[in-house]
Amino acid sequence: MTDVIEREIKVKLSLDPQFLIDRLLQEGYEYVGKEIQEDIYLNGDSRDFRKTDEALRIRLVNDKIELTYKGPKMGSKSKSREEITVSLDDKESMIRILEKLGYRVAQSVRKTRHVLRKGEFNICVDTVEGLGNFLEIEGIDVKEERLLDFFKEFRSKFGINGEIITKSYLELKVEKLAGSSN
Amino acid sequence: MTDVIEREIKVKLSLDPQFLIDRLLQEGYEYVGKEIQEDIYLNGDSRDFRKTDEALRIRLVNDKIELTYKGPKMGSKSKSREEITVSLDDKESMIRILEKLGYRVAQSVRKTRHVLRKGEFNICVDTVEGLGNFLEIEGIDVKEERLLDFFKEFRSKFGINGEIITKSYLELKVEKLAGSSN
Repeated sequence: MTDVIEREIKVKLSLDPQFLIDRLLQEGYEYVGKEIQEDIYLNGDSRDFRKTDEALRIRLVNDKIELTYKGPKMGSKSKSREEITVSLDDKESMIRILEKLGYRVAQSVRKTRHVLRKGEFNICVDTVEGLGNFLEIEGIDVKEERLLDFFKEFRSKFGINGEIITKSYLELKVEKLAGSSN
Repeated sequence: MTDVIEREIKVKLSLDPQFLIDRLLQEGYEYVGKEIQEDIYLNGDSRDFRKTDEALRIRLVNDKIELTYKGPKMGSKSKSREEITVSLDDKESMIRILEKLGYRVAQSVRKTRHVLRKGEFNICVDTVEGLGNFLEIEGIDVKEERLLDFFKEFRSKFGINGEIITKSYLELKVEKLAGSSN
C-alpha cells in the first residue's frame, strides 16, 4: 500500500472547458486522458457517516470499479485521512452485499474529467452533472506553498477568476439539493 | 448472475487421497485441477451471523479472491439460500474495510482440493487443515435421487465407508475447537 499526500485546489470554472484544454495543450501541457467517473456514496442504517466523518464510496472510472473507505479527517491542520481501497468486478453485487450489511446508497456524483499534466502537477478539468465546470489542480508530494505559487501563476496566465472552493463535489451536491427543496 | 442449485454429499475419507485419485483416473475420470482454498469467515460486532443464519466469507482460490454474502436458508426442505459474490484484488484491504464497518474475522478454513469430473458429477478430494481428508460429490443441476444413486455405486466401487456428513467444514472446525477447549 502506498500512502501519497494529495493536495488540491479547486475553483469554479467560468471559461469554456474545451477552450482551456486547448490553451493548456498550446502551452505544452501533456494530455493524460479522459475519465468518466461515477461516485456512489453509501451511508449506514445505524451509523451516520455525516456525523462520524467517514465515507464509503464505490467509484466507477471508465470500466474500473473501486470500493473505498475513508476514515475521519485526522488533526486540525493536516487534511490527511485513512483511505482503504479494493478493486472489484461488479458494482451491483457490491451494493447488494453492503445493503445486506446495513448500508444504503445515499447519493451519487457523476463527472467527466479531462486530466492534463505539467511536472508534478495534475490539472483536472471537470464537468460535474448538475453542478457545472470546475478546475482542480493537484500536486503530487508537493509542499502546500509550492502548490499555491503554481496556482497563482496559472490563474493569471489563463484568466481563472473563480474563488477557491474547499467543499467536495458531494457536499456541493447535497447543499444544492437542500437549497432547491426549500 | 446465474443461479445454479448445487447438491452435494460429503463423507470422511479413510483411504489415502492420492490412492483414490489414481484409481479414479484409471477408471476414466477427468482431472480438472488442484485448488488451494482458504475461506475466511467474518461475523458482526452487533449482528451474530450464527443467530441470523447468514454468512460473510472471503474465499481465496489459488490467486483469485472473492467476497460472498450468504443469506439465511430459505424453506425447510429446499437447501437454497441467497448468495451474492464479487471478485476482488486485495484480501487484506477488504478485511480492513469490513472491520471499519463493524465485522471481524471469526474463523478460517484452509483446504487443498483435487477436483475430478465424470459427466454431471464433480468429485472433490479435500484435505482440510486440522480436520483430515474428505470426499465431496457434487451434482450440477441434478435431481437428488440421481446423486444418491451415483453415490451408492461410487461408494461400493471405490470402497468408501464413511458416514454422510451434513455439516460444513466451518461447523466441523468450530465443533472441534469447542471440544478441544473443554
